[in-house]
Amino acid sequence: MPVPRLVRFVAQDDGQQYYGAADENLKVASVLDCANLFSQGAKPTETNKTIARLLCPLSMEDCRSIVCIGLNYRDHADEAKMAIPTVPVVFHKPVTALAGPYDDLDVPEMSWSRGKLDYEAELVIVIGTKASRVSKEDALDYVYGYTVGNDFSNRTWQLDPTLGGGQWCYSKSFDFSAPIGPAIVSKDILDPAKGLRIRTMLNGEVMQDGNTNNMIFSVAEIVSFLSQGMTLLPGTLIFTGTPAGVGFGRKPSIFTKDGDVLKVKIDGIGEIENKIVYAK
Amino acid sequence: MPVPRLVRFVAQDDGQQYYGAADENLKVASVLDCANLFSQGAKPTETNKTIARLLCPLSMEDCRSIVCIGLNYRDHADEAKMAIPTVPVVFHKPVTALAGPYDDLDVPEMSWSRGKLDYEAELVIVIGTKASRVSKEDALDYVYGYTVGNDFSNRTWQLDPTLGGGQWCYSKSFDFSAPIGPAIVSKDILDPAKGLRIRTMLNGEVMQDGNTNNMIFSVAEIVSFLSQGMTLLPGTLIFTGTPAGVGFGRKPSIFTKDGDVLKVKIDGIGEIENKIVYAK
Repeated sequence: MPVPRLVRFVAQDDGQQYYGAADENLKVASVLDCANLFSQGAKPTETNKTIARLLCPLSMEDCRSIVCIGLNYRDHADEAKMAIPTVPVVFHKPVTALAGPYDDLDVPEMSWSRGKLDYEAELVIVIGTKASRVSKEDALDYVYGYTVGNDFSNRTWQLDPTLGGGQWCYSKSFDFSAPIGPAIVSKDILDPAKGLRIRTMLNGEVMQDGNTNNMIFSVAEIVSFLSQGMTLLPGTLIFTGTPAGVGFGRKPSIFTKDGDVLKVKIDGIGEIENKIVYAK
Repeated sequence: MPVPRLVRFVAQDDGQQYYGAADENLKVASVLDCANLFSQGAKPTETNKTIARLLCPLSMEDCRSIVCIGLNYRDHADEAKMAIPTVPVVFHKPVTALAGPYDDLDVPEMSWSRGKLDYEAELVIVIGTKASRVSKEDALDYVYGYTVGNDFSNRTWQLDPTLGGGQWCYSKSFDFSAPIGPAIVSKDILDPAKGLRIRTMLNGEVMQDGNTNNMIFSVAEIVSFLSQGMTLLPGTLIFTGTPAGVGFGRKPSIFTKDGDVLKVKIDGIGEIENKIVYAK
């Protein structure tokens, strides 16, 4: 059974890192006994700790794979001037792209020196049970819960055909290009199909304001589709695409820069807030 | 220090799985004490075991990421009618794509039902030391060794723009789409830049016959390039592209089917041989 709000955190009292089952305000958590976080089920202990700092809710060691779905909102496919997909468009990020919900995004020079850094607010599925060739009807049985993600992208590397050869992976694989959090909210208390408002704020200004009920492929359809071809291990993250309003689709385009603050919020889950820092 | 030939195997005597330092013929191995295979260095023990069966030389748990470079041989870019890249073209496979050197490739119906299964013989780099923003000159310090890989691809999913949206990942992410092996040969005894003959045999007939000294981007250039943007963890595999002769580039095209046997061989490393099985 998933815990309602799974977090990873630094504890106030001893400065150590723990997985925990957090309260609604993400202030206190019961420490989880999680040698095998997903497949054995994480069991809350009697130990409660005050959360000093929230970390990426899944460590790089426990995240087995990051799969991403592109163009999964009709309005975003339109603004990107790309065809509405008839099957999910798939790409991957490496686990090294992960960052915490309030981490600075230390953008490597290889990325920032080519400009055009852009945000993508996304609902992220967390797989809890190994899934291979599961039906759409059964797909949610394999989901642990959901978190908020920013598919932080470099549009120069993504869209210049002389660079990536048309492949998106490199442009979306930079270190710190996948901040997620603040918690993984159990699928028992959250249903994205019913509609969750999803927003991006750039330095406080609303840039994206969509709803997860506008996804072209639903959570169940995505999990079923992917599992037909590739086994999804517990600890797999699936980014589910972004609604309209990204920087490169605006007129004029808006790209983020050193010092900007990106907040991505999904009602019912929470928000992540990351400052962009051009790494030296 | 890398061991000359790192293998993973089932032992004759007890049927258990081990990592080992194998002899040249891959018949006997000293068991490795490898709680931390790469970062602490794997140390051979006094225990020698006869190898009953070779496994994928890196387990899915120990493989942290699979990065692939596309179009890295001029003759292959030509046959694919794609531009010669000016920077490496990057895509990823999930760790679940891994298969052993002699495993049957149990192709999921989602793949075989759309036909056009194709082979790609590739030299695979194994990262042994965490690499972030390393120079071309220092890049080989972070490499543990090399193995043989087949970037087994579905050309329908890859090349039909109404399916993958132009993104290659899904077509190359199917279970069993990344057989590798038979051993990871230390960079101390093998230098791909000096030229290693690389071949594919389909049911015994030579289909690809290239040389690693024809790679557009060298091993050192690839590792340095990737590490500028993404941290490469120990246990990362990098597929380095394929020479000419793939099935879809031939006239007429040749695609593989149920029961076919694919052998990929790189001189100085060894060969992998996999039968294609259409999974029910």
